[in-house]
Amino acid sequence: MTVETIASHRCFEGEQLRLKHRADSLDCDMHFSLYLPPAARGGDVPLLYWLSGLTCSDENFVQKAGAQRYAAEHGVAIVAPDTSPRGEGVPDDPEGAWDFGLGAGFYVNATEAPWDRHYRMYDYLTEELPALLAEQFPVDTSRAAIFGHSMGGHGALVIALRNPARFQSVSAFAPIVAPSQCPWGEKALGNYLGPDRENWKNYDTCALIEAGALQLPMLVDQGEADNFLEEQLKTALLEQVCSRTGYEATIRRQPGYDHSYFFISSFIGSHIAFHARALEQSLAED
Amino acid sequence: MTVETIASHRCFEGEQLRLKHRADSLDCDMHFSLYLPPAARGGDVPLLYWLSGLTCSDENFVQKAGAQRYAAEHGVAIVAPDTSPRGEGVPDDPEGAWDFGLGAGFYVNATEAPWDRHYRMYDYLTEELPALLAEQFPVDTSRAAIFGHSMGGHGALVIALRNPARFQSVSAFAPIVAPSQCPWGEKALGNYLGPDRENWKNYDTCALIEAGALQLPMLVDQGEADNFLEEQLKTALLEQVCSRTGYEATIRRQPGYDHSYFFISSFIGSHIAFHARALEQSLAED
Repeated sequence: MTVETIASHRCFEGEQLRLKHRADSLDCDMHFSLYLPPAARGGDVPLLYWLSGLTCSDENFVQKAGAQRYAAEHGVAIVAPDTSPRGEGVPDDPEGAWDFGLGAGFYVNATEAPWDRHYRMYDYLTEELPALLAEQFPVDTSRAAIFGHSMGGHGALVIALRNPARFQSVSAFAPIVAPSQCPWGEKALGNYLGPDRENWKNYDTCALIEAGALQLPMLVDQGEADNFLEEQLKTALLEQVCSRTGYEATIRRQPGYDHSYFFISSFIGSHIAFHARALEQSLAED
Repeated sequence: MTVETIASHRCFEGEQLRLKHRADSLDCDMHFSLYLPPAARGGDVPLLYWLSGLTCSDENFVQKAGAQRYAAEHGVAIVAPDTSPRGEGVPDDPEGAWDFGLGAGFYVNATEAPWDRHYRMYDYLTEELPALLAEQFPVDTSRAAIFGHSMGGHGALVIALRNPARFQSVSAFAPIVAPSQCPWGEKALGNYLGPDRENWKNYDTCALIEAGALQLPMLVDQGEADNFLEEQLKTALLEQVCSRTGYEATIRRQPGYDHSYFFISSFIGSHIAFHARALEQSLAED
């Protein structure tokens, strides 16, 4: 597995890298960003996966979230993958909409043509990328947590709920908690997975919790001034299913905050500290 | 003076604003960004001016520096103006170069046609913008400090050295310390101010210190892996003139850091703490 270093910047005494590789699971070249804290010079460090929202690449988070300070303090690496396959031959929304296709992979394995050839972000994130990171970088993928924003919050929650043994904790900013029940999700899942809504349940946080997903430390922040809250994000559905099933999640509604990176940056330190605590606890239990 | 609010985002319990107004000194409409910390709800707070580098607008800093956390902690506002006049009728580099004209005002009052009509960033920053801020926002412009990056580091140093009574402290990231002696500066000052190099000395940090500028708390960070260090920034010239004249400045060379916002974000907390200390000290002396 060859990985090309596109850029490297010293940041909080660690290194902010941008990398490129051939992703077999997606049948295209992919970029990803990786922050290695100063502690990574002394050996493998725990790994946080950050999944971004609609229209983002691997770069938005590393430029706007201000996460490196906290990652350096806690000695954790953060990988930020892209949000969809890219490149020539990768199909996009036929009308060029920003909520589907490029920049909008929704972290699923598509089953429907023409999407099924490249749009396999679930496999990429749960298999190919972890293997590559474990092989090539000073990260311990057995000590991992996952978080994300909006579509990426959806991806983080779904991936963690389906792989509870592989993540010590999960968190999300303004996640799409029930893609089966909102316009963004219905468009994406309908196209990627086809019309049978039974197949959507594997990619729906509320449905997974309803079906009895294992308990995992979970933190969710949702801005109350977020324009997408009512129609797309529907935090209330997560609150209800957690309450109904006894799933313990910390869901915080943050007055005045919107959907932007100004919201994310305000609470990213709190999320990274949450994951660092869960990772330390799991280490203490080993 | 009418100011239009373009955007407002809650951030670290304060407000990140983007604003627009008619700038008489520049004869055009201008945008600027303003972070108001939570403390501003209780009365006027001290003000930091951030001046950005070549090609930047008022937005780069607020999105990439991660400054809001520290501004909130220390209870200071930060205003980030644009880097040049903008809009129809504002002349640009005839060849569209990025190091002169739009996005490259160099914080001077141009004296040469066609630049002298709009390119009056020095007056804008020392007169018009402070008056507007004092009138319209909960900031105390008598308690102020100034800092910036690259071309903006040059601007911050020059403006502070020429107005030492108006700023409690000054700092810079990778500043152009001697524009009279580097290609970026020679092009800009030559075009904006004409060929007589005597006139350039008012906009040259090293020349101002050489000429006996008053002492002001001064902090400079310079990355040693900065590609522009040798040809454009020339930190050594600042070190030499400070040493020669007995001007006390803290000039830190930071191993491994480049010219990017990853460098700025790594040390922005240290700079804001430096200014907060100077502002508190001046208050104690009042």
